[in-house]
Amino acid sequence: MPASTRPLPIREVPEWDAEADVLVVGQGVAGGAAAIEAARAGADTLVLERMTRGGGATALSTGITLFGGGTEIQQACGFADSVEDMLEFVKASSGAHADPERVRLYCEGSLEHFRWFQALGVEYEPTFHAAKTTHPFTSETLSFSGNEEAWPHSALARPVPRGHKPAREGEAGGYLMEAVLQGTLEAGARVLNECRAERLVADPSGRVVGVAARRERQPFFAKARRGVVLATGGFIFNEDMVAKHAPHLLVCNYKVGTEGDDGSGINMGVAAGGEAINMSEGLVLNAYYPPESHLKGVLVDGLGRRFVNEDAYLGRTSDAILSKADGVAFLLVDDEIYGRTQAFHKRAAVEESWEDMERALSLPPGSLTLTMATYNRFAEKGEDPYFHKAAKYVRPLAEPPFGALDCSTANSIFGVFTLGGLSVRASGEVLDSGGDPVVGLYAAGRCTAGLCREGRAYASGLSIGDASFFGRAAGRRVAAAEAWE
Amino acid sequence: MPASTRPLPIREVPEWDAEADVLVVGQGVAGGAAAIEAARAGADTLVLERMTRGGGATALSTGITLFGGGTEIQQACGFADSVEDMLEFVKASSGAHADPERVRLYCEGSLEHFRWFQALGVEYEPTFHAAKTTHPFTSETLSFSGNEEAWPHSALARPVPRGHKPAREGEAGGYLMEAVLQGTLEAGARVLNECRAERLVADPSGRVVGVAARRERQPFFAKARRGVVLATGGFIFNEDMVAKHAPHLLVCNYKVGTEGDDGSGINMGVAAGGEAINMSEGLVLNAYYPPESHLKGVLVDGLGRRFVNEDAYLGRTSDAILSKADGVAFLLVDDEIYGRTQAFHKRAAVEESWEDMERALSLPPGSLTLTMATYNRFAEKGEDPYFHKAAKYVRPLAEPPFGALDCSTANSIFGVFTLGGLSVRASGEVLDSGGDPVVGLYAAGRCTAGLCREGRAYASGLSIGDASFFGRAAGRRVAAAEAWE
Repeated sequence: MPASTRPLPIREVPEWDAEADVLVVGQGVAGGAAAIEAARAGADTLVLERMTRGGGATALSTGITLFGGGTEIQQACGFADSVEDMLEFVKASSGAHADPERVRLYCEGSLEHFRWFQALGVEYEPTFHAAKTTHPFTSETLSFSGNEEAWPHSALARPVPRGHKPAREGEAGGYLMEAVLQGTLEAGARVLNECRAERLVADPSGRVVGVAARRERQPFFAKARRGVVLATGGFIFNEDMVAKHAPHLLVCNYKVGTEGDDGSGINMGVAAGGEAINMSEGLVLNAYYPPESHLKGVLVDGLGRRFVNEDAYLGRTSDAILSKADGVAFLLVDDEIYGRTQAFHKRAAVEESWEDMERALSLPPGSLTLTMATYNRFAEKGEDPYFHKAAKYVRPLAEPPFGALDCSTANSIFGVFTLGGLSVRASGEVLDSGGDPVVGLYAAGRCTAGLCREGRAYASGLSIGDASFFGRAAGRRVAAAEAWE
Repeated sequence: MPASTRPLPIREVPEWDAEADVLVVGQGVAGGAAAIEAARAGADTLVLERMTRGGGATALSTGITLFGGGTEIQQACGFADSVEDMLEFVKASSGAHADPERVRLYCEGSLEHFRWFQALGVEYEPTFHAAKTTHPFTSETLSFSGNEEAWPHSALARPVPRGHKPAREGEAGGYLMEAVLQGTLEAGARVLNECRAERLVADPSGRVVGVAARRERQPFFAKARRGVVLATGGFIFNEDMVAKHAPHLLVCNYKVGTEGDDGSGINMGVAAGGEAINMSEGLVLNAYYPPESHLKGVLVDGLGRRFVNEDAYLGRTSDAILSKADGVAFLLVDDEIYGRTQAFHKRAAVEESWEDMERALSLPPGSLTLTMATYNRFAEKGEDPYFHKAAKYVRPLAEPPFGALDCSTANSIFGVFTLGGLSVRASGEVLDSGGDPVVGLYAAGRCTAGLCREGRAYASGLSIGDASFFGRAAGRRVAAAEAWE
């Protein structure tokens, strides 16, 4: 990435190496969706992808997408859903400061959006993965992928599973993206790989009219007659940017995404007049489950105290480890519920009593024994009046040996990606700080501040859902924009 | 403020209504300091101030400024200080992600900076205000103005008082600013009041060459031959901006600053190519002391648990009320330590036992009684192993009646101002996202990401100190810049 991302004045373009009605920068799920819709709407569409092959962060993911309102999969599995129920859940999962219009559009359009993926050839099967997990490795489609059954969401919205994974074993994001890449070509869009956008090109009025890129080490200039869609991903791979905007995320040691998530599109968009908002937010992921039995464990901080309901989605528990526990946490288990995590949490101690555990973990005298006595007293009745863990995960931990898994930022894997980015309308138009569109510029996916604005509210499937749904909207919008030439 | 803050192309300026080598936008302490230094360096300097009279947020403050390294006041009061000791404290008070160069320059230059204020005619007296307070209302100069004696700062730096209040009773910020305003005129700078900057003016290369303002409802164009210094304050009075960048601050109900703190300078700077960073940070202030005796109280959350050392600077305790206690907190006192706060905290309950208090505050059964039993047990020995409150504030709360002051965001005053803003070099040059200067543009004060980057680390005196010290640096730098015309 060059030092400056300020738009190149059009008069400095020696000649255009390519041109199109619509230029899409980045071929993750947001860019793919935008390109498909733009091309289907009749726009001559060109995708510039910096990698050898498209896919983006979605290709590295489970492929879970959040759909609802009564998909055929939900129905077949016996779950009734409605737009209204979905709305309450997506609202809760998007955070207190989400954009209500975006939430509403997403839920109202969800059934159609699900069929759009099916029509691309993505297969889903009418099966429900009942076990609470972060990575369903079976081919089963439906699952609870967020806080549906956990407080506080469970008190706000009727629990219905809405995570839809393509019917493939293991990680299915690559499979999903193959369908998107294939669909892009079938829709008639062109794709240039190994072509890295470096700056936008603007005319004297500030209108975005193209992209200055680098291809095989040579400058490459692409003209966009109707507009440019930035779909370049987030910025977690740009440590300098994380330090500037979300320094509390620097303790997280496992970046989720691709090297393309370096914030280049956000910086290009801001330099062209756009505004970056919500830049401090990220999703933090310390996966101490599966096994699901670990939700019956007790998570304590460095003072031996609980601080969150252990059965919450890991976006919420991990945020709590950072913000409430200052990064120091242990999951306490007994023999019956202990299992190996996918993230290979270290055992900090194995002891025969909570007194011994307290000493072994160097917790303040009396702190942990008190926590466990209190927890166990209520757990006998299946209650958790402090943190509202669901009754099915509440039972006393009274039979030694006891184990402590180290869930501290220093000693376990904390995945992280960013949730801040360009301010855009639901239609994809990039906005300046006054709320006016930057003419010719659109964006979707993790380079925007999208559907979910708070990591601690998140549910799996919201990013692929957001990026694909609003990527499509951006593609339709830019295809209908007036051409400047 | 107009919808668009994008720079006005110079060709759209009908004619210049004023011109100068240096334009300073805003006459708070940052702009005042910049103007004085620019004018003293021989630059023809013009200040544009939107209000009828300059002063900014500083004029509404106590006027405490953080100086150290052995000022004559510190010496006269018997406190030894050094640049090294000051450095450790300012480092701790600027947050984990502060700019080390800025911290170092500030401490190394502090003695000279103190004399600069004295030379302006600001009087300080060799007196020490020993009582812990947020607003010393006497004329005494020196005080501990932050976390000097409180954990964790007390473990990182030798406690030395560095808050310097001008020798005036009551709020002394207005007095301090009078000296700055007078000094500005004496230095030869011109000042235009009721002149509101709306957009920067840029030449085709992007260089900032002036300001498009509004004066007596008419457009007013001012040319800057060497550069423009933005000193426009923060953005706490712009709720839309707070929602975009720091939504967690929206719960705070008392904005600290002036209506000029609407983010206009930040938006103008970004629109001209600058980068805004650290935009989510703010200082939050719930002043449950003075009286100092309240530091002997116990602060609990809605689960009846402690979550911070009560003797910490209110920037830290208030941040903890938001982030650790989710906005619900009570300060528990007994008759001996109870007093009325300046912020008039409501009494949530007065009870004869902690059992009764627990019920009265609807805390979980057994929670508060346990907290108080534990606190009192250690307090008998003057210890606080959980949160490290200083021994002088630790004593049992065992003699009824007991009172609870409501320190919740819903029921008490939470002051707040922002700490994010333009990315600038210590010299005041505004930087773009690639780290290159925006030619012709400088900034200082709360419209920049300055010395302190974390509200929970803050000490009183850091904002006036930062704004004046780096305002001066910006003034010197812009005065030495090459003129474009």
